[in-house]
Amino acid sequence: MGNTFGRLFRVTTFGESHGPVVGAVVDGCPPRIPLSEEDIQVDLDRRRPGREPLATPRSEEDRVRILSGVFEGRTLGTPILLQVENRDARPQDYEHLREVFRPSHGDFTWQARFGIRDHRGGGRASARETVGRVAAGAVARRLLDMVWGVEILAWVGQIHDLVARVDPEGLTREQVEATPVRCPDLKAAEEMQARIRQVREEGDSLGGVVEVLVRGLPAGWGAPVFGKLQADLGAALLGLPAARGFEIGSGFSAAGMRGSEHNDLFCWEDGRLQTRTNRSGGVQAGISNGEDLRARVAFKPVPTLGQPLEAVDHLGRPVLLQPGGRHDTCIAPRAVPVVEAMVALVLADHGLLRLALSPPAHS
Amino acid sequence: MGNTFGRLFRVTTFGESHGPVVGAVVDGCPPRIPLSEEDIQVDLDRRRPGREPLATPRSEEDRVRILSGVFEGRTLGTPILLQVENRDARPQDYEHLREVFRPSHGDFTWQARFGIRDHRGGGRASARETVGRVAAGAVARRLLDMVWGVEILAWVGQIHDLVARVDPEGLTREQVEATPVRCPDLKAAEEMQARIRQVREEGDSLGGVVEVLVRGLPAGWGAPVFGKLQADLGAALLGLPAARGFEIGSGFSAAGMRGSEHNDLFCWEDGRLQTRTNRSGGVQAGISNGEDLRARVAFKPVPTLGQPLEAVDHLGRPVLLQPGGRHDTCIAPRAVPVVEAMVALVLADHGLLRLALSPPAHS
Amino acid sequence: MGNTFGRLFRVTTFGESHGPVVGAVVDGCPPRIPLSEEDIQVDLDRRRPGREPLATPRSEEDRVRILSGVFEGRTLGTPILLQVENRDARPQDYEHLREVFRPSHGDFTWQARFGIRDHRGGGRASARETVGRVAAGAVARRLLDMVWGVEILAWVGQIHDLVARVDPEGLTREQVEATPVRCPDLKAAEEMQARIRQVREEGDSLGGVVEVLVRGLPAGWGAPVFGKLQADLGAALLGLPAARGFEIGSGFSAAGMRGSEHNDLFCWEDGRLQTRTNRSGGVQAGISNGEDLRARVAFKPVPTLGQPLEAVDHLGRPVLLQPGGRHDTCIAPRAVPVVEAMVALVLADHGLLRLALSPPAHS
Amino acid sequence: MGNTFGRLFRVTTFGESHGPVVGAVVDGCPPRIPLSEEDIQVDLDRRRPGREPLATPRSEEDRVRILSGVFEGRTLGTPILLQVENRDARPQDYEHLREVFRPSHGDFTWQARFGIRDHRGGGRASARETVGRVAAGAVARRLLDMVWGVEILAWVGQIHDLVARVDPEGLTREQVEATPVRCPDLKAAEEMQARIRQVREEGDSLGGVVEVLVRGLPAGWGAPVFGKLQADLGAALLGLPAARGFEIGSGFSAAGMRGSEHNDLFCWEDGRLQTRTNRSGGVQAGISNGEDLRARVAFKPVPTLGQPLEAVDHLGRPVLLQPGGRHDTCIAPRAVPVVEAMVALVLADHGLLRLALSPPAHS
Repeated sequence: MGNTFGRLFRVTTFGESHGPVVGAVVDGCPPRIPLSEEDIQVDLDRRRPGREPLATPRSEEDRVRILSGVFEGRTLGTPILLQVENRDARPQDYEHLREVFRPSHGDFTWQARFGIRDHRGGGRASARETVGRVAAGAVARRLLDMVWGVEILAWVGQIHDLVARVDPEGLTREQVEATPVRCPDLKAAEEMQARIRQVREEGDSLGGVVEVLVRGLPAGWGAPVFGKLQADLGAALLGLPAARGFEIGSGFSAAGMRGSEHNDLFCWEDGRLQTRTNRSGGVQAGISNGEDLRARVAFKPVPTLGQPLEAVDHLGRPVLLQPGGRHDTCIAPRAVPVVEAMVALVLADHGLLRLALSPPAHS
Repeated sequence: MGNTFGRLFRVTTFGESHGPVVGAVVDGCPPRIPLSEEDIQVDLDRRRPGREPLATPRSEEDRVRILSGVFEGRTLGTPILLQVENRDARPQDYEHLREVFRPSHGDFTWQARFGIRDHRGGGRASARETVGRVAAGAVARRLLDMVWGVEILAWVGQIHDLVARVDPEGLTREQVEATPVRCPDLKAAEEMQARIRQVREEGDSLGGVVEVLVRGLPAGWGAPVFGKLQADLGAALLGLPAARGFEIGSGFSAAGMRGSEHNDLFCWEDGRLQTRTNRSGGVQAGISNGEDLRARVAFKPVPTLGQPLEAVDHLGRPVLLQPGGRHDTCIAPRAVPVVEAMVALVLADHGLLRLALSPPAHS
Repeated sequence: MGNTFGRLFRVTTFGESHGPVVGAVVDGCPPRIPLSEEDIQVDLDRRRPGREPLATPRSEEDRVRILSGVFEGRTLGTPILLQVENRDARPQDYEHLREVFRPSHGDFTWQARFGIRDHRGGGRASARETVGRVAAGAVARRLLDMVWGVEILAWVGQIHDLVARVDPEGLTREQVEATPVRCPDLKAAEEMQARIRQVREEGDSLGGVVEVLVRGLPAGWGAPVFGKLQADLGAALLGLPAARGFEIGSGFSAAGMRGSEHNDLFCWEDGRLQTRTNRSGGVQAGISNGEDLRARVAFKPVPTLGQPLEAVDHLGRPVLLQPGGRHDTCIAPRAVPVVEAMVALVLADHGLLRLALSPPAHS
Repeated sequence: MGNTFGRLFRVTTFGESHGPVVGAVVDGCPPRIPLSEEDIQVDLDRRRPGREPLATPRSEEDRVRILSGVFEGRTLGTPILLQVENRDARPQDYEHLREVFRPSHGDFTWQARFGIRDHRGGGRASARETVGRVAAGAVARRLLDMVWGVEILAWVGQIHDLVARVDPEGLTREQVEATPVRCPDLKAAEEMQARIRQVREEGDSLGGVVEVLVRGLPAGWGAPVFGKLQADLGAALLGLPAARGFEIGSGFSAAGMRGSEHNDLFCWEDGRLQTRTNRSGGVQAGISNGEDLRARVAFKPVPTLGQPLEAVDHLGRPVLLQPGGRHDTCIAPRAVPVVEAMVALVLADHGLLRLALSPPAHS
């Protein structure tokens, strides 16, 4: 349980960080959607570490293989197995962690839950698990693009106390990808990079915020009550490693507002009902209203540091861990394609639900 | 779809605001749990409007009836039907809203989704739907209390820009219930009440934040990857009417921190591994660590105001709605028992999952 | 768990035989389907006992009420609560069964499963639970009829060793309903009625077979692998009280055949690909092929007899139960509308899945 | 949808007959269960074709690899990826079938469902898909054996009109495996083999029946109403390729019986409540009663013959297919381990459900 996401567009991820493979099975993708390994590789490449100042020493090529569900370049409507080999696995590097619980990691809770764990690089609690999410998200994105023209774009909105100013109007992926921190506010991006370099040298890490925008989302997606768009998006994004908070539209700032400030008044423009403001973030009563969907997710600083870490062993005895292993100073930039992938999974699912549970054509 | 919550402890709510009944069916409650209508009524009574300055004119007695699944005072292990009659329904009051879309309500999106809606008091988009959640949550709470001794306590942490200072250590429900705003910081509570009165006179509404604390949660609850505690809690609470944001532990503030500040160091105390701080909010890698669980949910100001509302009709033509109908100035105080109920549903589900998917006794 | 049926068209039944109500919640019915209480009552009336020689003394009016999900005569797309009061409940009649396990009833297994049971009339193990199924099935049938023109017709094909000869070509519900045993082979029907009368006088009961036919089912419904039509139909019908066997098309007789005899050869007729024979029963590889769907379900003789019953108490001591209580001599005739209802639930679910997971229009 | 089986012990199979791999992901296996590739290989080897007179020319080694979820010989509680390469794939052999619909195959219905199909060897409609089921079933069996001591044993009970006489008392797997037809009635086995040889020479195929027995099943497994053991078993077994019918216990013969003949009377023996007869097949009211579980499944003759086959092309034009390709004359003997695997999946799921939804220890 707990490794499958979605109702109709269903994704199951598998794999431990230092096992043979990681990946996902996608069940519920409609048939006849054009899909190639290259479509998926593009997103996996964005997820990979790489560019200074963010690089982690682990260097995986992360070549995805489609092992089922696609025939002559189109989906069959059967399960799509997406698999990536772990080539740079170095399990011996982790032997000293076998019986150690690092602070604010999953070591202790995982042991409490299962009575067993793969201690090598976090096992399945590793952020490497998100390879499967990104691969599956690429399939979802293909479906969303092809059938409904929905576009998803995420970027880094904050690192530490550095907050970017981004106008989503006209924002492009190229602008996001222009800097290693994936922040389209170039001035903020420069400061963020400097901050990351400095903090990395100090052996520390930083938290951050990723923002996401969805364009072209039709009105009328989402289920009321327990399947509200913001609830499903929240579950999707709060389930990412290190995620600590989620907001839709005005988010927490709404708590400090009056109704007369917050209400989005309607206007009729371009032949459809629109809202003059978008504090709702594109979602009203859990259902899309045709405006841009806007959400934010907060990530804590990664708990692995470049300085000695005060841990304990399984008997509670203090252990001082010397720095080492592979980690990011700030997870937010690499989380950008993962956030996009999870949003794509939620929307693909709701798109299919919309097809199933619409008013019949002739009623 | 979208009206059932949970994997093993499964709740389906039903009912429109001005239909004959609202309520819930609970499937998956273990057998032999003592349960009476009074156990449920207590929470429903807390959910009801009532005390100045928060009262809405609607006056429902909200008597719950258990119509199945309980026999001679104990659960049977069969579906528990919990039902409340809508006695104070006044559908005629809503005739003028039949073809009107109010701003930041579900009127328009609901119509876009279904092509039909019950316009009377928001139909199923009404906060009255939460009667079913609270009733089901009371069953979950009974189970959590009886089997694991888990206790859930929520309170209002913020209204508008008034932020309470609350020490959760030793906090009791009595302290929370001592004020109509359900804020245990008495000074803040007084200011909040004054603010609500004032804003209400101005015909406006206010947002707020509800905080929740879980005590006695064993370590090792939660599923990694897609069933993380914070993901399920986020989905549960973001699905409440007017919810806009969710945080676990340090939440959005974590984005502004360094790893060395944020890490919760372990200590061995009282015969078990504890953490000296609790920035994790009791959840690490999606699994409980035995500390208190801490989360917060932000509510927007209710969009129904005591002043004329600029709406549109179904053709997009402006309609000015005169104030009227029934609403709260700030939803947060009444959301307190609803938040508790949703947290109880999530935890009851994870408690049962823990029973099913644990290491076998003799392995 | 175990009280909900379906993936998209989801039905949860509730209620004990001698509790206040029985019924169902339907979640996942598309919006805007015309639906009245009368549409449902028709099928409930067919399920009711009544006509000699089949009558059981229990006399319930079984008036259904739609308590949510329908507005001004159309479905809202929200949960539809269908409820029937138990008016003729006589719990005191069952006091002597409180600690008794009757043979081939659910008394013992229910106790083993739950450690508690409602002993009154079988509690939830009673065939009275099927009231909820029939009510929900009526909604499914309305949907199937309105959107796809699918028609479902069941009848009694066998009672004891009396096997009917029925030509399904042109068979109508009127012909089925013409006799109390619901067997359209009038000669067999007469013999069956005589047999039932005789066996009833002897204080015994009889098994039987119900056959079902679906007309107008489009080709291409059903999911391969684990959601095959025959698997879902089998689960639906084997889950009925007293059901012991299920066949699709040629069924068990196929085990005795050669491939050259069994294959259904194609022919092109009336502008579509048809098969000359229909040993497949309308389903090939789990998916409908456009021919009539044909299935059969076997029911054991009801274990309650009109003669003393050798039971045991909860300590295993023999108890001789005097005849009494209310039961049918042969369940098959009253199972006819229940079989139709379950088939309708399966098909409504697959119809909606077909809408969700079809090749995109323009691919 | 439709490629996942189970509620808690969840299995998703993947793979096309002539794609790169087939296999399964198991999510929901408890942690710390000892598991090796060899445990799984044993069952896969039994599934493989091989021994005269049943061999199909396709010769796959079918080596399974465990690619995730197992660490140092024990399950982790994470998804277990079981993968088998398709080495003997000869896609070019199937080019002539690209636009042909063979009679009583899935060619036409699959095309009707998806608008696309992998025509090579049946694609995912091939019996090769059952490799994943058998692999996953081996994991389930390991769990059942280790935690509850449940044992599952299937055999061939009928081929064509040859019906075996088998006393399940004391029956062993060795006795079943003693003959290529997997029929422990040696006299019948010999006749069956002769019949298969003869019919194969005539270019024809045969149907058959597989019987299954479960020993050691505790009383109290199964969910009433929609999760009855016989309903879940029926769905599991009717979903196998070529399955046409399913019976539990007395099955269809119950339709011809009287209640006084059919009732299983209780007796107190060996310190527990038992039944003197077992017409219930170990299941009463959908819940196990502690007796041996008994079920049967009927398979049609495989539609691929060793003689020219009258097919049609996608325009409905007749095509005469010359014999060729790879097939079994009778599927029943090879279905034996597949039937066992599916029964294991159902029971593992119900075993875990039993753990989750039992009366609390101290109530």
